[in-house]
Amino acid sequence: MKSTNALMAEAFGTFWLVFGGCGSAVFSAAFPDVGIGLLGVSLAFGLTVLTMAYTVGHVSGGHFNPAVTVGLWSGGRFPAKDVLPYIVAQVVGAIIAAFLLYWIASGKPGYDLATNGLASNGVDDHSPGKYTLAAGFVAEVVLTMFFLLIIMGSTHGRAPAGFAPIAIGLGLTLIHLISIPITNTSVNPARSTGPALVEGGIALQQLWVFWLAPLIGGALGGWIYRTLIADNEPAVTGH
Amino acid sequence: MKSTNALMAEAFGTFWLVFGGCGSAVFSAAFPDVGIGLLGVSLAFGLTVLTMAYTVGHVSGGHFNPAVTVGLWSGGRFPAKDVLPYIVAQVVGAIIAAFLLYWIASGKPGYDLATNGLASNGVDDHSPGKYTLAAGFVAEVVLTMFFLLIIMGSTHGRAPAGFAPIAIGLGLTLIHLISIPITNTSVNPARSTGPALVEGGIALQQLWVFWLAPLIGGALGGWIYRTLIADNEPAVTGH
Amino acid sequence: MKSTNALMAEAFGTFWLVFGGCGSAVFSAAFPDVGIGLLGVSLAFGLTVLTMAYTVGHVSGGHFNPAVTVGLWSGGRFPAKDVLPYIVAQVVGAIIAAFLLYWIASGKPGYDLATNGLASNGVDDHSPGKYTLAAGFVAEVVLTMFFLLIIMGSTHGRAPAGFAPIAIGLGLTLIHLISIPITNTSVNPARSTGPALVEGGIALQQLWVFWLAPLIGGALGGWIYRTLIADNEPAVTGH
Amino acid sequence: MKSTNALMAEAFGTFWLVFGGCGSAVFSAAFPDVGIGLLGVSLAFGLTVLTMAYTVGHVSGGHFNPAVTVGLWSGGRFPAKDVLPYIVAQVVGAIIAAFLLYWIASGKPGYDLATNGLASNGVDDHSPGKYTLAAGFVAEVVLTMFFLLIIMGSTHGRAPAGFAPIAIGLGLTLIHLISIPITNTSVNPARSTGPALVEGGIALQQLWVFWLAPLIGGALGGWIYRTLIADNEPAVTGH
Repeated sequence: MKSTNALMAEAFGTFWLVFGGCGSAVFSAAFPDVGIGLLGVSLAFGLTVLTMAYTVGHVSGGHFNPAVTVGLWSGGRFPAKDVLPYIVAQVVGAIIAAFLLYWIASGKPGYDLATNGLASNGVDDHSPGKYTLAAGFVAEVVLTMFFLLIIMGSTHGRAPAGFAPIAIGLGLTLIHLISIPITNTSVNPARSTGPALVEGGIALQQLWVFWLAPLIGGALGGWIYRTLIADNEPAVTGH
Repeated sequence: MKSTNALMAEAFGTFWLVFGGCGSAVFSAAFPDVGIGLLGVSLAFGLTVLTMAYTVGHVSGGHFNPAVTVGLWSGGRFPAKDVLPYIVAQVVGAIIAAFLLYWIASGKPGYDLATNGLASNGVDDHSPGKYTLAAGFVAEVVLTMFFLLIIMGSTHGRAPAGFAPIAIGLGLTLIHLISIPITNTSVNPARSTGPALVEGGIALQQLWVFWLAPLIGGALGGWIYRTLIADNEPAVTGH
Repeated sequence: MKSTNALMAEAFGTFWLVFGGCGSAVFSAAFPDVGIGLLGVSLAFGLTVLTMAYTVGHVSGGHFNPAVTVGLWSGGRFPAKDVLPYIVAQVVGAIIAAFLLYWIASGKPGYDLATNGLASNGVDDHSPGKYTLAAGFVAEVVLTMFFLLIIMGSTHGRAPAGFAPIAIGLGLTLIHLISIPITNTSVNPARSTGPALVEGGIALQQLWVFWLAPLIGGALGGWIYRTLIADNEPAVTGH
Repeated sequence: MKSTNALMAEAFGTFWLVFGGCGSAVFSAAFPDVGIGLLGVSLAFGLTVLTMAYTVGHVSGGHFNPAVTVGLWSGGRFPAKDVLPYIVAQVVGAIIAAFLLYWIASGKPGYDLATNGLASNGVDDHSPGKYTLAAGFVAEVVLTMFFLLIIMGSTHGRAPAGFAPIAIGLGLTLIHLISIPITNTSVNPARSTGPALVEGGIALQQLWVFWLAPLIGGALGGWIYRTLIADNEPAVTGH
């Protein structure tokens, strides 16, 4: 059984992912004239994972994402009995982050939750570029699958040691560079849950998409890496 | 003979390069107001290689590019008999990626292949900045040559271990920062082939440029590094 | 007692943080058409710390920030008797940087201190996005707290060695991506003091916010990491 | 005496710095709608050094810059007898790069050297932001001085091994983020010489500034690091 320290690490890490990633989108993406745009938001999401993976990777493995936890289980790197506690800790961290984010955002005169939102994920009318459910679903599956390939590969016993947080964090940046216009990029059910609970409405109605697609993609990625690319001789747990 | 795992790794890696690099261009580059621009696309291309080199570098060497495979052969680091299988795996991965990219892009109302394209490469009328064939050809040769210098040097036995994927991935970012306006940046025949097959027309007619120039540049780079800069004492294969 | 070399290192490092971070904001953020924006400024602040941590981390630990010094003391990694000398060295470096910055900025025809400022921090009317004192205060506490988590974790004895300056520097970039619109981002009392002394007025009146909030956040972060996440077995001092 | 390989490495490396750094400025900085801006150019300059330092750092030390060569001599890390050959190799590489750059740039219909230039450095009327000679001179001295601090420190025997190219390359990115508006950023006499020779005119008349200021700054930086911050116990040559 994982320690309380590990669950605390997952909660703090997922808090940081939502607070930093969604926060950069809410506060800075469209700031007049000098806003950071989708490139800055992509960098921010990636850096939340890069920083926290170096901070608590040695405590909990640094998942911060139910799809990663499930994918590492599917890839034979994480014990089944720890999956649920990890996911609970991640979702709790994400929800607290979303509410704090909302409180700080409300400190700007003129901020309106209905208009500005909290960077929730969506498809069809709620997709930034109005992409269909089918396109969004497939994109989330494929991107989460590759996210798990990167995690499985860069933490493999034969990969150079210590670099995994760079590969994984910048991999998440890359995933956002590709897909913010499609679904606002989830690949992480916890990240989707926090803002959806605060926003309610269409974000909450579509939340199932951002649990189902990333979990399928994550499980696929873990399985593909282990089966088709490299097996787990020297066993490694997490990164 | 390289294993099936290595060919699978090259196919997945080249899929990711085309899906992520061209995908960021198609979906996000010109997104209204907050688009990632050529800087974001350059970063995305580089990160596809950085991430996959950490993911499968220890399985296949992480080429994802026929010009790299040929350049490493020319530099005395890769056996001749594996060159063709590697190139086939790379091209297959690239073509699958381009078709999936097209399918997802079509999920946006108003997307039109003829107008928006799939980030194919080109010169003259098909160059983003209308650069001539001569300028584009020379640029592709020089840039692929330096790409191979970076690969040969950063994976050399006396270079610090483990950092090569950073140097190589960010080297590809740099190459894109320089040359997207010139040819939309290839330096990789597989990357050019995927979108050209989907787009057809002028992209397909000019495809020969993006096989010939990168292969010449890659072969030159491998040879120059070994001959003029540093020989291969402690032999190293791939990165 | 720390050596004179360590104090010199802290002074030079904090000079660089203010000169580079605030300098990029003053000179380049809003340059016509091709300005670097808040994304470029965020990157600049982070790179001042990344570069100086590799430069003098082995001399002084590379704090460059009173909140970091206090947080590492709170986290049991830094001796109480060295806290004050470090803070004095940091503030001296920051003030010299701000005055030099002002002198160079004045070399551009039309530069006016009252209009253009020196990238000082602020809330309410002096906040870039007009965020309230409450929102700004809480944001500074939370972000400095996470900055210390990152520092404590990435320099922990079980974290991979040598990567801490990357995690910490890019962590500061991330913090700026989130919060420049809120307070212009301090998380560092020395960084706030330099420009406030040169600008005077409202920047100086609000300076207490950018001492109090970061020091609280830093102390909290050090304590939380040690108490809730990972204790200090193999003791590590600084990074 | 350094080998021919080392001089070749310095020539190729400085070619890459000018071709990549100035090339990104000439081709991509102001590309309509999606141009990379000063942020992209800053990144490009830094990545030329990051990539080449990993490529030939183990061959020549990876200077690519007369001010670095002089600074390392001043810091007691480089023998006097090799200073001149290194500088000659660097300047030759830079000049070839500038002429090739000009030839490729001319492949775009409407390119005009007098109007578009080749990213040469300047002050007063030739400064991007019209900064005075005094401001530009001081900025170049201070920034080159810190560039040498970063180089001396990150290659010091007690700094973590292998990371120096990241610190140095991204340090050059940071320097550009600060100072492109002031002088178009030199800190490197070879980088200034190439474009000035091709452009002629005011760029050539002001070229003395970009030899004198960086050489003073570099020599100061090497001396300050060795004298005030950390001496050279375990001696290290280059990075």
